[in-house]
Parts: sequence; C-alpha cells; structure tokens
Amino acid sequence: MSEADLLGHIARLAATKPLGPRIEVGPGDDCAVVTIRGRLLVTVDQLVDGRHYDHGTAPIDLVARKALARSISDIAAMAGTPVCAVVAGCCPPGFPYGYELVDAIHRWGRALSCPVIGGDLATHDGRLVLSVTVLGECHATRGPVLRSGARAGDGVWVTGALGGSYRTGRHLSFPPRVTEGIALADLLGDRLSSMIDVSDGLGRDTARIARASGVRIALDAAAFPMALGVESWEEAAGDGEDYELVCTVTERAGDAAALGALGLTRIGEVYAGEGCIIRAPEGWEVDAASMGWDHR
Amino acid sequence: MSEADLLGHIARLAATKPLGPRIEVGPGDDCAVVTIRGRLLVTVDQLVDGRHYDHGTAPIDLVARKALARSISDIAAMAGTPVCAVVAGCCPPGFPYGYELVDAIHRWGRALSCPVIGGDLATHDGRLVLSVTVLGECHATRGPVLRSGARAGDGVWVTGALGGSYRTGRHLSFPPRVTEGIALADLLGDRLSSMIDVSDGLGRDTARIARASGVRIALDAAAFPMALGVESWEEAAGDGEDYELVCTVTERAGDAAALGALGLTRIGEVYAGEGCIIRAPEGWEVDAASMGWDHR
Repeated sequence: MSEADLLGHIARLAATKPLGPRIEVGPGDDCAVVTIRGRLLVTVDQLVDGRHYDHGTAPIDLVARKALARSISDIAAMAGTPVCAVVAGCCPPGFPYGYELVDAIHRWGRALSCPVIGGDLATHDGRLVLSVTVLGECHATRGPVLRSGARAGDGVWVTGALGGSYRTGRHLSFPPRVTEGIALADLLGDRLSSMIDVSDGLGRDTARIARASGVRIALDAAAFPMALGVESWEEAAGDGEDYELVCTVTERAGDAAALGALGLTRIGEVYAGEGCIIRAPEGWEVDAASMGWDHR
Repeated sequence: MSEADLLGHIARLAATKPLGPRIEVGPGDDCAVVTIRGRLLVTVDQLVDGRHYDHGTAPIDLVARKALARSISDIAAMAGTPVCAVVAGCCPPGFPYGYELVDAIHRWGRALSCPVIGGDLATHDGRLVLSVTVLGECHATRGPVLRSGARAGDGVWVTGALGGSYRTGRHLSFPPRVTEGIALADLLGDRLSSMIDVSDGLGRDTARIARASGVRIALDAAAFPMALGVESWEEAAGDGEDYELVCTVTERAGDAAALGALGLTRIGEVYAGEGCIIRAPEGWEVDAASMGWDHR
C-alpha cells in the first residue's frame, strides 16, 4: 500500500457515509472539527501487537475493534458518552492489511457510536502499534465519575462477570460498558461515588480506587461473579482485560434490586483507612494490588 | 523504569503544577476532563524514531518538543488555538529515558501553551513511537480555515522561510505558527480562504490546497523565501518539515503591507482549473505535487 492511496481511501470512506451531525469536518484536513456539549472527556490508549494481542491468533477486524473498545471503556468508566475517535497506526514495513485495518477501524467506530474522524499513518521496523484517542461528553447531571470519590460505608459493585478474558478471546470482543455507566449515573446521581474499568485485573484496579479516594476497601472473593469457564476467584480477581466497571455506591434501600437489574453484583465495602484487600472464602486476606496482570 | 513508578511521577508532575483553569481533571484518572469554548479542533500525529528523527543525533528533549509542535502546527493551520494534548509513547524494552521524556513532554506542553493532560505508556520490540493528539479551539469569528476554500483570483502567501529544515536541525526547534494563524484570521476574516502547514514540502502541500479546493495554483519559484543556507528554489519547494503556513487570500488594497508586516511572502496565484505548478525562474514549469519529501 502507498500512504497516499490509503489516505485517499480513508477520505472516500468518510465522504460516502456521513459521520453524523456533530462532525463538521472529518478525515482529510489538518484537523477535524467537532461540536461538543458541556465538558469534554479525553483518553488515549495503545494496542501493541505482541503485548495486547498476537497477530498470529487475532483477526485484524477484532484488533481494530479492541483498539477502539479499550479507549471507549475509559469513557464508560467516567459515566460518559463517546463522541468520536482519532487513530494513529504505526505499521511494519510492507504491512499487507492496511486497507482491511482502515476499513475495520471506521466500521467499528460507527458500530460503537464513536466515529473515527481523523488519524495518522507511519511505518517502523516493528509490529503494529495502534494509538486511539477517544473524546466523550460528561454525564449531563452527574458529571464525570472519578476514582477519588469513594467514602467509608459505600458498597462496591461490579458489572458483568470476571476472569479468563485473554484465554477465551473475550478481550477481543467485550462490550464497553457505556450503557451501564450512564444508567448507573442516571439511577444514583452523586451516590455513584467512584468508578473505574477493569483492565489490569479486579484486584489491582479496585486498589486504585482505594488509593485515589484515601479509603480502605475489602472485597469478598466468595461474591465475585465469574465468567463461564473460570473456576477460581483468583482468576476472577487477577486476570486482566475484563473491561467491566467497578464502582462504589452510597447505598439506600432499593439499590440492591435496581443494581441487580442492571447486571451488577455487590462484591465488597469501603472503610476508613487505606489499602485494598480480598477476603478469601477460607478466611485469609490477600493484598488486592498484588492480584493483577502486567501487560508489559 | 517500571510503568507504575513512571505513572506516579506523571501524577506528581501534574499535581505540583496546576494545568490551568480549563483542565478540571488531568493525568491519573480514566479520562481527563476539559472545558472547551465553541467548536473543537482535533488532530493526531506520530513521531517515529528512524523516520522523523534519529535517536543518535536528536536530544530526547527536542524529540519531545517536536512531537508536540507537529500536532500544534496542525491546529495553527486551521487558525485555531491549542488547548491541551494527550501523548501515547511506545518505548523500546529497557528504554533508559522514560523520566527524561515524560519531564520534557510536560515541560514543553506548558511552554507551548498546550498542557499534556493524559497519556499512555507501553513497550514494544522497536524504536520509540510517540503519538500526540492535540485539541484546540476554532478562531472565534473566522471559524476553522480549511484546505478547500481557495478561489480563482486569490493570492498565495507563506509565512517564514523554507528549505533545509532537516539538514540544519530546524525540524527539531521550529515555532508552530499559532500566533500567525490567528493574526491572519483576525486581519482577513473570510478573505483568508484556505490554509495548510508545510510538513511534506511546499510543492506537495500547496498541491493539496489546489486539489481540495478544485482550483489551479501557480507558484513563482523566484519569489520563494529561502531559509539561511538554502541555495536553490528546489530545496525550498521540496524539503519537508518547514511547518510554515501556506494560505490563499482574497486580496484587497493594503493587504501586501499588512501581510508583509506579519512576515508573509506572496508566492503565487490561484486560477480556475486544476493542478499545482511551479514556474521556475528559467521559465519552465514543474508539477508541484512531485516536489516533496516522503517520510516513509
């Protein structure tokens, strides 16, 4: 592929299918031009061949999907709504999947309600590196849900089920929890006190809430919702790449039923103090921050 | 360096020096939170070791500077104002310059009025790849200046001086023409009909205006402003990495003096038709699109 040919292809892709009323200028000029309502959310994440997937087993279509979905998951973790993305791709020399990758990125952008409005292409002597910046809008009434708002007495909840994501291939096809994040903010308002998405493992990511909030969190391993085929709480707590949302909630009567209806499970409580521990079913405790997956 | 140590260092950097009133949440949460006035400009560009610089000759401080300045130059080319940046870095294994790079990126972000509000770090088996997304605001009255607005009868102007950027090292220290872009929009309003920044060479980038606008452009080689040490118009037209602004202007009496005072030089005219040619001082013509630098 030549870069000029591929850029022409991208411009035609964008021209033939409108990107929506928010996107005044899409790919092909020096910048894209976008209308944003209220405060802007910004996040960037990279997907590196050999680190976050392996080109021998991951179809290029799902590589494109995962690259977008990871950054969209960060928007979901603030209870935000994704608006659009820009993608930078650094390809190996003679990379044969240029058109396929570009088509997949633009198609998944539309499918995930996060159209790709710009990008950059380069080559290097290495494997594919995709860098995806996603822009979003804050929840209109709750505002951004940070990691730092957990308070003693809150309950800890998690969406979906955990563990085995990399092994089963779910890390390539997970749904970013945008709808759930917004529904939680709608339902709870300021009682949704903190939130994070699980990328490095339930233990390690929940420990980040504890540290940012200056509180102690205790998780109950017996309560962890486990994905199909996951047989131990250690896998549920330590496998990364779940992209579920962990949040803390200042609870009221009725929350249990409402949060259960949204697909969440109660997995622990917030205390005064510091640190994050997991109580094993056998009674002993483990430092949650030690349970996680290091992508590097 | 461990990623955790470096992320802690980044969070402390951001915490000790406020990023400005527009940045509600900086590095360290799932997303940054920013206030934007009016329509948003978005651009992403990559800086690849071995493609856009060479680690043997470029100090890491200026590598960080160039990575930011290239994307800021895209904002300038729309007559916009940069607001903030996010940076993704993909480092070689055992990369020894992690802290130095992070410090330089944050310092240059502040110095270039474009604070770095978030990022991502990864490692790969290759040389350093930096991907920089810059967000900006449109000019309040003129709006975004696209490549597609040139009209027959307009004059073609360029800021600064051209050529030899890579050879002299200016590609590492060029000033993004933000002030000039805004001043042009202030002065000319809608008469500033199109604009682009020169990254791939004057010839090739001016040809992009011609193509996007559906017009013919003729450039006069004898008029090209040449950087110190540049001895031929071919270098001025064909060397890339100038990061000067080329614009088309629907001219009126008085513009020549005003544009000259802003440091611009008149280098050609816009006609009905298509294509972009350069008239050599000897009288023959060359296809401008053929004169440019291929980074790949």
